[in-house]
Amino acid sequence: MMTVGIIGLGLIGGSMAIDLKRRGFADTVLGVESDPVNEAAAGKIGLVDETVSYDDCISRSDIIVVAVPVGIAVKMVCDILDRFKDGGYTSKIVIDVCSTKEQISLATRYHPCRRQYVPTHPMAGTEYSGPWAAMPGLFDGRACIFANPEESDPRALHTIEKLYATLNMRPTYMDASNHDVHTAYVSHISHVTSFALALTVLEKEKDEKHIFDLASGGFSSTVRLAKSNADMWVPILTQNRDNVLRVIDTYIEKMQDFRNAIADYDADRIRSLIGEANRIKKILR
Amino acid sequence: MMTVGIIGLGLIGGSMAIDLKRRGFADTVLGVESDPVNEAAAGKIGLVDETVSYDDCISRSDIIVVAVPVGIAVKMVCDILDRFKDGGYTSKIVIDVCSTKEQISLATRYHPCRRQYVPTHPMAGTEYSGPWAAMPGLFDGRACIFANPEESDPRALHTIEKLYATLNMRPTYMDASNHDVHTAYVSHISHVTSFALALTVLEKEKDEKHIFDLASGGFSSTVRLAKSNADMWVPILTQNRDNVLRVIDTYIEKMQDFRNAIADYDADRIRSLIGEANRIKKILR
Repeated sequence: MMTVGIIGLGLIGGSMAIDLKRRGFADTVLGVESDPVNEAAAGKIGLVDETVSYDDCISRSDIIVVAVPVGIAVKMVCDILDRFKDGGYTSKIVIDVCSTKEQISLATRYHPCRRQYVPTHPMAGTEYSGPWAAMPGLFDGRACIFANPEESDPRALHTIEKLYATLNMRPTYMDASNHDVHTAYVSHISHVTSFALALTVLEKEKDEKHIFDLASGGFSSTVRLAKSNADMWVPILTQNRDNVLRVIDTYIEKMQDFRNAIADYDADRIRSLIGEANRIKKILR
Repeated sequence: MMTVGIIGLGLIGGSMAIDLKRRGFADTVLGVESDPVNEAAAGKIGLVDETVSYDDCISRSDIIVVAVPVGIAVKMVCDILDRFKDGGYTSKIVIDVCSTKEQISLATRYHPCRRQYVPTHPMAGTEYSGPWAAMPGLFDGRACIFANPEESDPRALHTIEKLYATLNMRPTYMDASNHDVHTAYVSHISHVTSFALALTVLEKEKDEKHIFDLASGGFSSTVRLAKSNADMWVPILTQNRDNVLRVIDTYIEKMQDFRNAIADYDADRIRSLIGEANRIKKILR
């Protein structure tokens, strides 16, 4: 009998709750949610079998999933490992699902119960948040990153690999600091560029009807991520500061290349920049 | 009996051909395609009833749709209006479907047959191009902009309004120079930011497998437009240079605001920038 406790019933935690139960990995799914509105909604939607206190979740669960914003997650994983130690819980496992991995790895590195912790990053999501954003199948076919897998107990790692296999995720193994470099390049920068695009258009285009009418010109997909939530993204961008800054700087250079080519009516240069950018087609379908 | 001639059997021209015929607006759809591979493909796919020469298209069609990149379209619309004059064709209509409207309006403004020309911009598309990208229903529910409608003959305008009503588009009427300002804000800037994002990631992330694995983190939707084709976008960006430069400059300022807030670990400032960007949610669903 496997009990999974999920702390944070938002998009990621809620979607895991649905599929781990439906697909038979968990016999019981317990949920912890600190926001009373979200807790009540999760109850009405029926995301988990029972919402419980943080203490009860730790004592009753075999696997504890920390699915809260990364700033809170660092402290919470440390606290849960302390409780494993104090309670003599040698077979329980804690995992997190955060989008940055280096700080949480550093904070837990020398904890006596470190081997009961498996840091993961399931690379799935939408721009929506909260228990009402949770959905079955969210993780299917996506990549899940296991950070510093050699620091976890092999049996714990194996159990969590089975958990993600239930979610139909492709496992990828990576050093925590490499993870943060790669996600800055591919995921974090996309969010910053979308936020900046939304700010630009909202400032420049005062007529909301025009934004709506003209959005079919590609704007809506490009700006989609600008709907993402600050509670999640403020700690990601500050925790991954150095990597994100490096990518932003390269990005601003590329924008300036375009700006100069357009300012000079330099059709050949614009054509060569677009041709280079088009290489992304070969990688993404 | 209505014959529609479409010059340029790409995504837009090809998709119009499909629905104008299927939905009974045109009895006959003629096509002109200068690229032999595209012409052969359009024939195999069956986009039009017949591919014909440019001259035959003009003499046989009641409505001529110019669906070629905007640099070529300016000259072509002028040439077709010349032929209307020389041939004494007083009831034929020519339309274009280009993404910039000011230069084409200036070039045609004083033409003696100007009133037989209806400048339009159907705001629909995908990041793909060519006859194989054409699809039924592409225009359904989207906005179609009519530029400077008072310069067209009211009967010609009415006929073209019926054409776009067949495609289920919502008509919007706008001055040509306003059109170019608004599309710079909402559509053209999105393409430039996507191209720059693709260039950044391709430069920074040498490992293509990582790009693919991590792309579910929002990157793929943000970078989608970077697949767009240079033949279409070089003339748009140069023709709409001044508006595009103004928006790029605001955009770079916003990126720098984010950069500085992240560099300073200024969580409050990042939170307020994201909160402001989130206002886009109210406008786009």
